[in-house]
Amino acid sequence: RAVRIQHFRPSVFSEMRDLAVRTGAVDMGQGAPAMAAPAALTAAVAAAVEKGLNQYSPAAGLPELRAAVASYRRRTTGVRYRPDTEVVVTAGATEALSAALLALCDPGDEVLAFDPCYDAYSACAELAGARLVTVPLAARDGGFVLDEAALRSGFGPRTRVLLFNSPHNPTGKVFTDEELAVVAALCREHGVIVVADEVYEHLAYDGRPHRTIAALPGMRERTLVVSGAGKTFNVTGWRIGWACGPAPLVDALLSVKQFVTFAAGTPFQAAVAGALWDVESWAVELREELSARRDLLTAGLQAAGLPAFPGEGGYFVLADVRGWGYRDDVEFCRDLPARAGVVAIPCSAFHHRANAPRWLARFAFCKSTEAVAEAVARLGA
Amino acid sequence: RAVRIQHFRPSVFSEMRDLAVRTGAVDMGQGAPAMAAPAALTAAVAAAVEKGLNQYSPAAGLPELRAAVASYRRRTTGVRYRPDTEVVVTAGATEALSAALLALCDPGDEVLAFDPCYDAYSACAELAGARLVTVPLAARDGGFVLDEAALRSGFGPRTRVLLFNSPHNPTGKVFTDEELAVVAALCREHGVIVVADEVYEHLAYDGRPHRTIAALPGMRERTLVVSGAGKTFNVTGWRIGWACGPAPLVDALLSVKQFVTFAAGTPFQAAVAGALWDVESWAVELREELSARRDLLTAGLQAAGLPAFPGEGGYFVLADVRGWGYRDDVEFCRDLPARAGVVAIPCSAFHHRANAPRWLARFAFCKSTEAVAEAVARLGA
Ligand SMILES: CSCCC(=O)C(=O)O
Ligand SMILES: CSCCC(=O)C(=O)O
Repeated sequence: RAVRIQHFRPSVFSEMRDLAVRTGAVDMGQGAPAMAAPAALTAAVAAAVEKGLNQYSPAAGLPELRAAVASYRRRTTGVRYRPDTEVVVTAGATEALSAALLALCDPGDEVLAFDPCYDAYSACAELAGARLVTVPLAARDGGFVLDEAALRSGFGPRTRVLLFNSPHNPTGKVFTDEELAVVAALCREHGVIVVADEVYEHLAYDGRPHRTIAALPGMRERTLVVSGAGKTFNVTGWRIGWACGPAPLVDALLSVKQFVTFAAGTPFQAAVAGALWDVESWAVELREELSARRDLLTAGLQAAGLPAFPGEGGYFVLADVRGWGYRDDVEFCRDLPARAGVVAIPCSAFHHRANAPRWLARFAFCKSTEAVAEAVARLGA
Repeated sequence: RAVRIQHFRPSVFSEMRDLAVRTGAVDMGQGAPAMAAPAALTAAVAAAVEKGLNQYSPAAGLPELRAAVASYRRRTTGVRYRPDTEVVVTAGATEALSAALLALCDPGDEVLAFDPCYDAYSACAELAGARLVTVPLAARDGGFVLDEAALRSGFGPRTRVLLFNSPHNPTGKVFTDEELAVVAALCREHGVIVVADEVYEHLAYDGRPHRTIAALPGMRERTLVVSGAGKTFNVTGWRIGWACGPAPLVDALLSVKQFVTFAAGTPFQAAVAGALWDVESWAVELREELSARRDLLTAGLQAAGLPAFPGEGGYFVLADVRGWGYRDDVEFCRDLPARAGVVAIPCSAFHHRANAPRWLARFAFCKSTEAVAEAVARLGA
């Protein structure tokens, strides 16, 4: 195998999924939602397939999906994109991230991200011959906040891209307007491109707005916004993602992805295009369901003696395993199926720094209410 | 954009598709089949989606699809693969090719292929920092044959992978058993891995068998066979491909693809798994339909004064544009929509060598019989 992947290991999601299957534990690991997709959306796929919409879409994606993406982004964030040159459809948000870094980074470049972060970020940087440089979020009041000095010290002459994710996986943090302004100012100052991973854009809870960093002054021109249908419509297995940004960045991404996968699934693209026209009202209900499950899980973790971080957005809450006397999240997660019949993911799988906390476990609440209740009952027992 | 993609251009398929849409010409360009998918296959997708099979599959693919792939490969080629460690599902065969090269090639490595070849080959090599080295097929009797001396001279100390494609795009050539033996011997001699692109495996015509190079002595251990559902079941827009090979090669590919796209479309995987159990009888009919269209097109090209190469397999025939007084296939293809209301692809889009023929145009016959007949009528007029 090539040198760049000598140290690649199976993704932590595969490992923990196998563990859940093997032990029959309640799987609170991977962010695979148990909620159903909109009925109109699944019906639209069946219709598209039967109608014969089964061949290659254009490499950039179906025009109607690109138009629907541009429209919802304008409606929900105020930022306008031209569907024909500033939107590209990808094989899930994952491909948008990997293709963006292959398109933008030269060997020796640095990709900046917060620690902890989604595990694919470092791999995507390394596939491009670049290196992930992380700056820690600062622990405060049982949550995480931006540490401006730390972030500033992360920029260097080879910093090419900031990978920015809000709502944030795995912490559940939603960055505040003030934090966004600081991040944006530093990226402008250093001439750095932002790849903004907004897959949880519709899942900011408790009335928090989702803000895109692309809406800040001077940022549209240097930001590729990445999102997708998976987390919004509960169809993570359809692999429909997209990226929006200025034409030169979108064109660079398209240049790569046309040779990496060529195109995304045509019937899913057609169906998602239809559903996006009404995404706002769908998302209202989804947020309600999910925040109720978050509350159930958070309260259950607290009651079980595992203090939980605020899940401000997304699918996950972090819990402090020191509550059960553990010093090490990997050990905790290894024991958890036998001790409590639950699978969680050690947050250290998302950490890159030697001095990072090693006492946080990530629990997903995008599961059925019954599953969350069952997990809570088992943890409490 | 990164240095590695400075010279990437929109794929020729996008360009010619746009031309066909703009001019209203009969599109004989991209290999997007007009034939319907099996009715049971589309029904199975609708059922899977309604049943809620809409979340991430395992990164390596659904176990039932991997089992079905291993089974049909054993039935059709005699080569056995373990579904759990020697088969991986990808986002179309395209992702299998791109991820394989990212997984196997270091910067400075060479990837060997025949000239002409599918346009993504060079791009995939370059994404990995490697370089495509091509050796020409020799023109003989209005077709192409292997040139052993040329192939031998293509191997060097940095040759890591041979990209081998049979039935061959764009020439329509099916490599003979003797040719396969020569290719295999040279790869063994030089310790080179073969990535065997067999997407047209079921489309070898006139009773020609499809042979996989992996079946030759000493080759299974050094070959990744790549194929997919698109060309076999007329579902190129579903993006379901796979690779089979020895565990270390499959594992390397999986290491990359788990971070490039994570997984392929779950409902499509479930449906294709079912269809593969009976792929042989489906393929008999498909070959009959397609070879009849090939005959119609070949005869029509000849009658129109454009001598055609034998289409031994796959979707394409090459025609000699000198029959119409052209010296340049790009010019011919540029004029063709206006002159005859047809779109074809200049074979030079698949050529890499300065002294390659520049007088061949590729016509796809995977279209409706009416479209092929209409194209033939227009070309003859
Ligand atoms: C392929 S896993 C994608 C992200 C996610 O769902 C998780 O972090 O669990
Ligand atoms: C994305 S195009 C794939 C190959 C093909 O169909 C062609 O060569 O036309």
